[in-house]
Amino acid sequence: MNKHQLRTVCAPIILALVLVGLLTVSVLAAPSDDRLLARWAIAIHGGAGSLLPGLDRVRRDSLEQSLRQALQAGTKILSTGGSALDAVETVVVMLEDDPQFNAGKGAVFTRAGTHELDASIMDGARLRCGGVAGIRFQKNPIKVARLVMEHTPHVLLAGEGADAFASEQRQERVAQDYFYTNRRFRELQKALAEMGEKPLEKPAYPLPVDSRTDIPGEDGPSGTVGCVALDSRGNLAAATSTGGLTGKLPGRVGDTPICGAGTYANNENCAVSCTGKGEQFIRNSIAARVAVLMDERGFNVDESVSYCLNEILEPGDGGIIAVDRQGRISMRATTGAMPRGVADSAGRLETAIGIDH
Amino acid sequence: MNKHQLRTVCAPIILALVLVGLLTVSVLAAPSDDRLLARWAIAIHGGAGSLLPGLDRVRRDSLEQSLRQALQAGTKILSTGGSALDAVETVVVMLEDDPQFNAGKGAVFTRAGTHELDASIMDGARLRCGGVAGIRFQKNPIKVARLVMEHTPHVLLAGEGADAFASEQRQERVAQDYFYTNRRFRELQKALAEMGEKPLEKPAYPLPVDSRTDIPGEDGPSGTVGCVALDSRGNLAAATSTGGLTGKLPGRVGDTPICGAGTYANNENCAVSCTGKGEQFIRNSIAARVAVLMDERGFNVDESVSYCLNEILEPGDGGIIAVDRQGRISMRATTGAMPRGVADSAGRLETAIGIDH
Repeated sequence: MNKHQLRTVCAPIILALVLVGLLTVSVLAAPSDDRLLARWAIAIHGGAGSLLPGLDRVRRDSLEQSLRQALQAGTKILSTGGSALDAVETVVVMLEDDPQFNAGKGAVFTRAGTHELDASIMDGARLRCGGVAGIRFQKNPIKVARLVMEHTPHVLLAGEGADAFASEQRQERVAQDYFYTNRRFRELQKALAEMGEKPLEKPAYPLPVDSRTDIPGEDGPSGTVGCVALDSRGNLAAATSTGGLTGKLPGRVGDTPICGAGTYANNENCAVSCTGKGEQFIRNSIAARVAVLMDERGFNVDESVSYCLNEILEPGDGGIIAVDRQGRISMRATTGAMPRGVADSAGRLETAIGIDH
Repeated sequence: MNKHQLRTVCAPIILALVLVGLLTVSVLAAPSDDRLLARWAIAIHGGAGSLLPGLDRVRRDSLEQSLRQALQAGTKILSTGGSALDAVETVVVMLEDDPQFNAGKGAVFTRAGTHELDASIMDGARLRCGGVAGIRFQKNPIKVARLVMEHTPHVLLAGEGADAFASEQRQERVAQDYFYTNRRFRELQKALAEMGEKPLEKPAYPLPVDSRTDIPGEDGPSGTVGCVALDSRGNLAAATSTGGLTGKLPGRVGDTPICGAGTYANNENCAVSCTGKGEQFIRNSIAARVAVLMDERGFNVDESVSYCLNEILEPGDGGIIAVDRQGRISMRATTGAMPRGVADSAGRLETAIGIDH
């Protein structure tokens, strides 16, 4: 054989060997139970609440559509190699801008007729975290929480200091009337009556010119929003945002802005976002507890979430979503409803509202 | 024998039998390793810091004297049947009133030349807790933290809302200049220089008329204050109070006001008060972790404190004091010094400052 003939014969053989080699490598790298089940995964919640029998189809569809849109935005980031941190922030910004949820635009009223918003974000790769509590003049508290994480030596800023920091970081301010919705003001009146307090004639700020903002179907199950994600580099992140409790005392800080209480992420175990009676989640450090129990007891993520809801918290205290480093998702609540959704690289995309106990 | 003779003979015998019985009961009830070692026990800290070689005798004696006085006040409450909650609050009030510590009167300055104080308290009997963050016009933040616990449905109030709540509860307001000390203002200037920021000419408030308040020996090891106690009814409680970090951003919330991060108490395991780099204690939920590791790993209180300081936190992050339900005390720090003290019903009363590694 001359050189040319040798090449003609050998080339296909070499090519075949290379292909077999590649195939072997990819089979060995295929997911087993202890390995990556999904290249990426994302879950979201829209707060734990009660499922009213009268929740109409229109409102239910509208909620599920919002959840799907937010999931799709997260999916787009994760499926194109984006980070879990960017995904959870982007998703929470979308839910903050949606007046159906008690976060950002749809934030509830304090007892004083004002709005005070809480949010936090955590990066599982380096246990970095950032939060804002009682922020009043920012459209998207979760963006400020991320700036606290990335541009301060601190992990939590509250009140005036949080708003001042946001302004220094050139975040656009909004007036309090940005958060006005008829629905939330009616909810405040109801809460004040239940607490035996006098009703407020109007919010603590002048009513906005167009104050007819209304949401179909009052008192729905939607509340706090949260998102957890695993990205294709194996990084976990979590973010949570809320307007807090209707009728809360001004200055009240719930679990949402506190990493370890309402939000947690650690590449070693899981990312967690909580919703419900914040005081209960703080006194039991629930978000961190989900992760710690995985490490200490060898629980899988769903066992850990169940244990926290059923053995540590009281029935009706709230809900938890979590994703582990293999992309397994847990979404549970001990309330009647928790609008929620999940998507992953295996093609899963689901949303739901009610909880079957 | 007549009746009288019978009585004369039998009475001493019965008395002897009763005495033997009582002795037997008390021997059986004597402390074993798993039982109560002390009817009550109390430990305090004055912050984790560096031990300067030049710390003079005067300042060291003055610190130890303050610690002893505070311990004696706690001892008086506990030894007369008072509650652990009252003991930790009383002790922390005394340390807040002492300008040597970075809490209450001696609170450090924020970057803006103001004072923002944090404190929390927790009741191990019912896992009730209360905290204030960024409170500005209260002499004793720990008192307000207890009122949050007892008179609101919340566990943490921050900023203006915390001050407004304190006023509603008829707590006496102080002006910001109450917290002025030359020492802390010099510390701020030093911190600003280290951060590459411009020095402040003066605080954000008019200097008080008598602004010569000075403390012998600058830059000592004293900082945040905390107290943990077991009372004779078996209840545990913890309290922590601080002015935070010198040069912190206004609005910064550290671990001190957050139950689960800087303070924790649970009758099932232990009461904990932390001091150090607050951000590290928040992201690792350290106060709660000490308790959780006792439950999950069967650690004793000292093993749990050591594990948190050495395996979870970084060297130099801070210190922890804790007491368990048997009255065992752990007091450890990974810094050069932590002014501290301990007393119990067995007659122990000790104070110390430096840490041997």
